[in-house]
Amino acid sequence: MDFLKKYNVELHQYLEKAVAQKEPNQLYDPIKYILSLGGKRIRPKLTLMICDFFGTDFKKAMNAALAVELFHNFSLIHDDIMDNAPLRRGKVTVHEKWDVNTAILSGDAMLILAYQFFESYEPKMFQELAKLFSETALQVCEGQQHDMDFETRDDVILGEYINMIGQKTAVLLGAAMKMGAIVAEASKRDKEIIYLFGENLGIAFQLQDDYLDVFGNPETFGKQVGGDIISNKKTILYILAINSSTQAQAEELEHLFSISPKDATDKIATVKEIFIASGAANATQSKIEEYSNFAYALLDEITISEEKKQLLRNFGNDLMQRNV
Amino acid sequence: MDFLKKYNVELHQYLEKAVAQKEPNQLYDPIKYILSLGGKRIRPKLTLMICDFFGTDFKKAMNAALAVELFHNFSLIHDDIMDNAPLRRGKVTVHEKWDVNTAILSGDAMLILAYQFFESYEPKMFQELAKLFSETALQVCEGQQHDMDFETRDDVILGEYINMIGQKTAVLLGAAMKMGAIVAEASKRDKEIIYLFGENLGIAFQLQDDYLDVFGNPETFGKQVGGDIISNKKTILYILAINSSTQAQAEELEHLFSISPKDATDKIATVKEIFIASGAANATQSKIEEYSNFAYALLDEITISEEKKQLLRNFGNDLMQRNV
Repeated sequence: MDFLKKYNVELHQYLEKAVAQKEPNQLYDPIKYILSLGGKRIRPKLTLMICDFFGTDFKKAMNAALAVELFHNFSLIHDDIMDNAPLRRGKVTVHEKWDVNTAILSGDAMLILAYQFFESYEPKMFQELAKLFSETALQVCEGQQHDMDFETRDDVILGEYINMIGQKTAVLLGAAMKMGAIVAEASKRDKEIIYLFGENLGIAFQLQDDYLDVFGNPETFGKQVGGDIISNKKTILYILAINSSTQAQAEELEHLFSISPKDATDKIATVKEIFIASGAANATQSKIEEYSNFAYALLDEITISEEKKQLLRNFGNDLMQRNV
Repeated sequence: MDFLKKYNVELHQYLEKAVAQKEPNQLYDPIKYILSLGGKRIRPKLTLMICDFFGTDFKKAMNAALAVELFHNFSLIHDDIMDNAPLRRGKVTVHEKWDVNTAILSGDAMLILAYQFFESYEPKMFQELAKLFSETALQVCEGQQHDMDFETRDDVILGEYINMIGQKTAVLLGAAMKMGAIVAEASKRDKEIIYLFGENLGIAFQLQDDYLDVFGNPETFGKQVGGDIISNKKTILYILAINSSTQAQAEELEHLFSISPKDATDKIATVKEIFIASGAANATQSKIEEYSNFAYALLDEITISEEKKQLLRNFGNDLMQRNV
């Protein structure tokens, strides 16, 4: 999709000069570092795309797109501290390359810098963007806290899990798109629907991520297949399997998610079998379809051309298939 | 001062309900906890006072005042992690009462909540307040980073030190006051001057804090006198002493600031002597006077009544004497 390449080129240029090299280096170097690690830039691309599709020059949405990308990277820096993660996008994480204090403070500065990108918009648009941003950012924090809380609970139900991924991942996709619509001065209804489209697509995307983590193709998934099983992460597959498997299977699953064998080959194989036998794998695919179908159905309600709608569906499919 | 009591009562009530008890508790409990620890609420009081003095109902500035107080407490939570501090206002710090991850995430949420308090103002005022807030917040981060950088440097000069405390402490006082003036729709010039008044008073206040940490009255200072010497913190007294003492004294000072004896009584006494003999103690008092006199001279330029100016001078003096 040619327009995506166009956004990418522009985004790359703006991101390079997004953060001026100000003093002190120790504060700004980590920010430049994490932005240099790349990533797919899905969220800022969505902001530009939606602005474009609503008939406004996508460059007008550039500062909103940069705010979204800076916020996303701020959350990665702080989440990586909390998860004690050594690597991000194949490179050393900020708290490992520098230290935890630097990662905390540079993350804080990055969150503030994100807000500053909205300052180029006139007051009414500024307020609408900043309000949406704060509301979304707070939900992302709440989602992260729920995610951490769930680690020590064994009674998480499906609804709670979907709420959690909704807050932690999906609302930012919805907000990224809505910001494009805000800059394009779309109607209130269009703005609301495009948000819901992004949110539901985001939930489908995260569920697909859970699914591919177990059943994905190691060559195209981009992360280590089986990673969630190795780290005993209770995703939708685990929650559904516990509730629909035999008692013996459920007990085995609980046991397997309490151990960390050096060689996880057998553990992964057994867990996979239970995920399939219990029907959890199929049920997860149904949920993914449910959320993506709902998202696509919402597109019918938006006042953009059929051609643009098709481009959005294609983008959604590519996102789900990890082709973005 | 009766009006201060009035602000205090209102502030207390608003702060109590400032943060709704939302889920998840683990995210919001630490925020309510740190706000419950009290403190002198100097910054929000200044916001209310300046709004009042410019002839506008101080309650109109309440949300800006709450934003400033939330930001200040956010920075305390994150700074306490970085400083590995066990106590804050005599109570256990957030990262000790919960854990570092909770302190990081609750701090993040608190910074976002601070921005949300501006949403009650109409778009133009919202933008002016949020811009000032972001600029100030970023300077506070820069000041904190410089402060940490200075710990490992032994060539910090006076100008750098004053810049650092300016960013870390004083700009927030200036911004707190300017926000009151913004809400009161004061003139551009009045807003600029009140900011400079707060900034210069803030620098004087921080230098006074350095001075009292060594020479203060243990009964009224509120912190452990000698604390900076015990923790080898190189404040203005150290910087001035190193530059104006004999070579023997300078070497002794450098040595004393590299050790941490169990009983610090002798160390404190010797350092005090050098601070006095080198002229650093007197020179610090001159600097304090210089900044506070400059601040008070700025007051002459503001278009409020002489009576209000006197109240501001009184407040400044009380602040310096720790009577607020």
